[in-house]
Amino acid sequence: MIKSINHYLSNAGKRMKRSAIREILKHLQKPGMISFAGGLPAPESFPVDDLKDVVLEIIENNGPDGLQYGTTEGDPLLRKLLVERHNRQGLKLTTENLIIVTGSQQAIDLIAKVFLDPEDYVLCGLPSYLGGLNAFTVYGAKLKGITLDEQGMKTDELEETIIRLRELGRRIKLLYLIPDFQNPAGITLPDNRREKIIQIAKKYDILIIEDSPYREVRFEGEPQKLMQEMDPSGRVITLCSFSKILAPGFRVGWIIGHPLIIDKIVMAKQTADICTSTFVQKVIARYMQKGLLEKNLEKTIALYRERRTHMVSCFRKYMPEGVRWTEPQGGLFLFVTLPGNIDANDVFNKAIERNVAFVTGSTFFCNDTGRNTMRINFSFSNEEQIETGVQRLAEVIREEIESK
Amino acid sequence: MIKSINHYLSNAGKRMKRSAIREILKHLQKPGMISFAGGLPAPESFPVDDLKDVVLEIIENNGPDGLQYGTTEGDPLLRKLLVERHNRQGLKLTTENLIIVTGSQQAIDLIAKVFLDPEDYVLCGLPSYLGGLNAFTVYGAKLKGITLDEQGMKTDELEETIIRLRELGRRIKLLYLIPDFQNPAGITLPDNRREKIIQIAKKYDILIIEDSPYREVRFEGEPQKLMQEMDPSGRVITLCSFSKILAPGFRVGWIIGHPLIIDKIVMAKQTADICTSTFVQKVIARYMQKGLLEKNLEKTIALYRERRTHMVSCFRKYMPEGVRWTEPQGGLFLFVTLPGNIDANDVFNKAIERNVAFVTGSTFFCNDTGRNTMRINFSFSNEEQIETGVQRLAEVIREEIESK
Repeated sequence: MIKSINHYLSNAGKRMKRSAIREILKHLQKPGMISFAGGLPAPESFPVDDLKDVVLEIIENNGPDGLQYGTTEGDPLLRKLLVERHNRQGLKLTTENLIIVTGSQQAIDLIAKVFLDPEDYVLCGLPSYLGGLNAFTVYGAKLKGITLDEQGMKTDELEETIIRLRELGRRIKLLYLIPDFQNPAGITLPDNRREKIIQIAKKYDILIIEDSPYREVRFEGEPQKLMQEMDPSGRVITLCSFSKILAPGFRVGWIIGHPLIIDKIVMAKQTADICTSTFVQKVIARYMQKGLLEKNLEKTIALYRERRTHMVSCFRKYMPEGVRWTEPQGGLFLFVTLPGNIDANDVFNKAIERNVAFVTGSTFFCNDTGRNTMRINFSFSNEEQIETGVQRLAEVIREEIESK
Repeated sequence: MIKSINHYLSNAGKRMKRSAIREILKHLQKPGMISFAGGLPAPESFPVDDLKDVVLEIIENNGPDGLQYGTTEGDPLLRKLLVERHNRQGLKLTTENLIIVTGSQQAIDLIAKVFLDPEDYVLCGLPSYLGGLNAFTVYGAKLKGITLDEQGMKTDELEETIIRLRELGRRIKLLYLIPDFQNPAGITLPDNRREKIIQIAKKYDILIIEDSPYREVRFEGEPQKLMQEMDPSGRVITLCSFSKILAPGFRVGWIIGHPLIIDKIVMAKQTADICTSTFVQKVIARYMQKGLLEKNLEKTIALYRERRTHMVSCFRKYMPEGVRWTEPQGGLFLFVTLPGNIDANDVFNKAIERNVAFVTGSTFFCNDTGRNTMRINFSFSNEEQIETGVQRLAEVIREEIESK
């Protein structure tokens, strides 16, 4: 019997590890646990009844087609509907600019495969979405984090970092951004900073990944422009997803970009999974055609707005002095900063004992900083759970502060 | 505007190309075309009515769960049902031996990612499934083909090749096999040759990929043992799929292997697409629970048996002398060998003009041989199309032979 597989592994295989968040999620099986940990949509936001009708229609009218292999680019109708929807919102796309993928995690993986060799650099926010960072590092890429201020990525630091890395002879391939309701920091980049970042990327010939799963989950305020819309040069690759606006269980997202880039991603996807489920693509296309996406999105936004507002009011009510948090205009998360001498890992261990979970912020910092930060999800828990969970969390934090 | 993306590409990105089969499939849009080209299941084999009931049950009873994120390993019930089914057929699995993937193409891709560095060798049959070969080469692996005789891969040549490559200092990581109704050659390895191959793999410490999408589509004769069952050492990784026994449009397959290997594949899948669609996994699990899989498989086998028999009788009736073909006991393909001086590419170009398509066999030979061979699919076309298509094809071949 094989005792170890280490000597068979590729360098990528050796670099793979279980996600830290995944390990946290194990604790969530415990009865009575209130979870602010995952980035899970509210089950109440899933349009079960509407989907029932749509799924029936697809099986009755598109049965065999919806069960057959499809093209790698994606279902033609779904691509057309997405292109039209984006164009109504200000983009100027054709279907050559768009490919359907198996969730936007696959988008990140395919882009990493197409562009990243070992030792290539990816610039990212401090902090950034862990699933993105892990996908890049499996391919051997080096991550370099750029500090965020209240408006997002600091452009002076970005440019200085690029200059310094280039002086050292490093190849910088990608700049990874989550411009709207950044995961985990909750920050939205203003238009002028988007412009500035695009200028810098152009000057130093770097591709931008605009990861945008939360953009449409906006509770208030005016949306900024998609960086895709601002950049005429084709260097922005935008990742979108149905996971937060419809249902993650379908595993459907899409990529918008320059036709040359999309064409290469098609080739990458062909050997990765041939095509995304034709069945769920047809279900989503029909769902969109019936105008149900906008209807459900409105409902979801209202629900999350309430939960965000309630979460923030509980934070105000219960949190001890010295704790700061974001009050985001959209998305799924608050980002919490504890006093500098408090380690969120200690808070985490005690919180788990009191049946409340979150994700330590340091998980999202590629330079292992942010040890006094926490990511708190508000989409998954109901009002009562939010109140009780924040109370428990506040108690633990208070005890930690008082013990120092 | 970006004019070229070549300078951004990774080495993997540079290696990616559009699949030859994919390019062939473009011709199939032509009206009146009869296609023996793709490996598409018969639309008539899809259990549309049964699925309608199952999908309704899932939405009504598992709505929110089926729309939420799931675990990377796969739906617990589906894994359990598959483990039980395999164990009834002679394996001794636990759920630790099994992960659900987004079609078995993803299985190949994840395995390549976990095990293959550039310049690592993969041994494969001459010929072999193109989607597998392409997935390996994207990771920079070198392919070395081993001749097949009527019983499949030649074991003496296999061992000699391994010895020679090792003398040259090459690292051989994987042996890629399709033991049952090999794609494209249609050959099934007998048990004794499976045993011999496992011995060789053990002696030289190579992992075996047993790609097994067609195994259950058997028209007659007794099944051979799965290599997974014969190998107590854990070096066989078996890939299975619902694509040919239920519906490819769901994009669901599974991998069986040693828990250490499955664990690493879980890590690889986590950054590749987080999880396979929970919705379709639950649909398939319920479908299996109701005993519908076996029922539909029986129907599918009967349909494909008829089509195979009809295809073979048309070949006997119409093909000119000098043309040889396999008469497979299962699977989806005949493999045809033309006289040595005939190039199947020439036949292809003329066949397309006469509205009949196939895939040139050389596509599946990693050493660019097999130029006088053709892969002919019999699952997708009805009896009338088979008759007309074979007639057209025979005419073209006769003309080619006579013109030499």
